[in-house]
Amino acid sequence: MLNENSIHLMNRVIKLSKDNLNNNKVPIAAIVVDSSTNEIISEATNGDSVLDHAEILVLKKALDKLSTNRLYECDIYVTIEPCPMCATAIAKTHIRRLYFGAEDKKGGGVINGPKIFSHSNLKVPEVISHCFAEETSNLLKKFFESKRN
Amino acid sequence: MLNENSIHLMNRVIKLSKDNLNNNKVPIAAIVVDSSTNEIISEATNGDSVLDHAEILVLKKALDKLSTNRLYECDIYVTIEPCPMCATAIAKTHIRRLYFGAEDKKGGGVINGPKIFSHSNLKVPEVISHCFAEETSNLLKKFFESKRN
Repeated sequence: MLNENSIHLMNRVIKLSKDNLNNNKVPIAAIVVDSSTNEIISEATNGDSVLDHAEILVLKKALDKLSTNRLYECDIYVTIEPCPMCATAIAKTHIRRLYFGAEDKKGGGVINGPKIFSHSNLKVPEVISHCFAEETSNLLKKFFESKRN
Repeated sequence: MLNENSIHLMNRVIKLSKDNLNNNKVPIAAIVVDSSTNEIISEATNGDSVLDHAEILVLKKALDKLSTNRLYECDIYVTIEPCPMCATAIAKTHIRRLYFGAEDKKGGGVINGPKIFSHSNLKVPEVISHCFAEETSNLLKKFFESKRN
C-alpha cells in the first residue's frame, strides 16, 4: 500500500519518465527522497551511456549533495525494477526503502534474474514493488514499440 | 594460462593497486585494453565514493574515449573478482574477456554470490579468474589489516 506521499513521488517519477520518452529516450527515472522530511534530494533519468542508468545517476547526485557514502534515511523511487547493477548500487548506499513500478522479467535484478538482495551480504533495502505497475509497464512498451517502428 | 601480454597487464593492474594502497585507498585497479592492438584504452583505481569502483570508472572512460556503448574488441583486467554491480556493467558494455585476480567470496558477483553471468541475458564475457591470485589477495588483506589497526 502506498501512502499519499509515495503516490506523489511515483507520479513524479512517471512524469520524468514521460519527459524522457518525449525526448525519444528510455522512459526511466529515479528520485531519492529524505524519508523523514519528504524532501527530494535528487532526480535523474536514464542517460545515453549504457552505464548511465537513472538509479546510478540519482544515487551519485544524492551522495554528492549530502557529502556521504550512506543514505540510511533515504528512499529511492524508480520507474521499473532495477537491473542487477543498480540493485547492487542501491544496497551499497544503504538506502532504507526501494519503490519501483513494473517488474522487468528480462533485465530486472531484484525480484527477477539474480535477485541481488537475496544473495548480497550488503544491507538490503525494504522493497515495495509493482507501484503503478500497468502505467509504468505501458510507458516502456511504448518506447520499445517506437524503436521497432 | 596467461600469455605474455596478459601477464604484463595484470602486473600493471597490481602496480596501480599498490599505488592506491600507498595512498591509503582500497588497492583495486582496472584496465581496459584493445585486444587486437594491445593498446591500453583506459586505467582507473577505486575512488572515494562507494559507487566509484575501478571497473565502473575504467569502463566509462573507455566508452567516452571510443565514443561508443560497446567494447566488443576490448578486454578488462581487474585486481579482484568484480562485485555484482561491476559484473553487470561489464556485461552491458559487451566486453570480450574479463581477467581478474583473487576471488572475493564475500563481495564477488562472478563466481561467487549471484554469479551474474549465469543469470544475465546480456552478452557475457569470457572469464579468466585467479590471475596472480595470491599476490592480489595479499594486497587486499594488507589493506583491511591496516584499516583494523
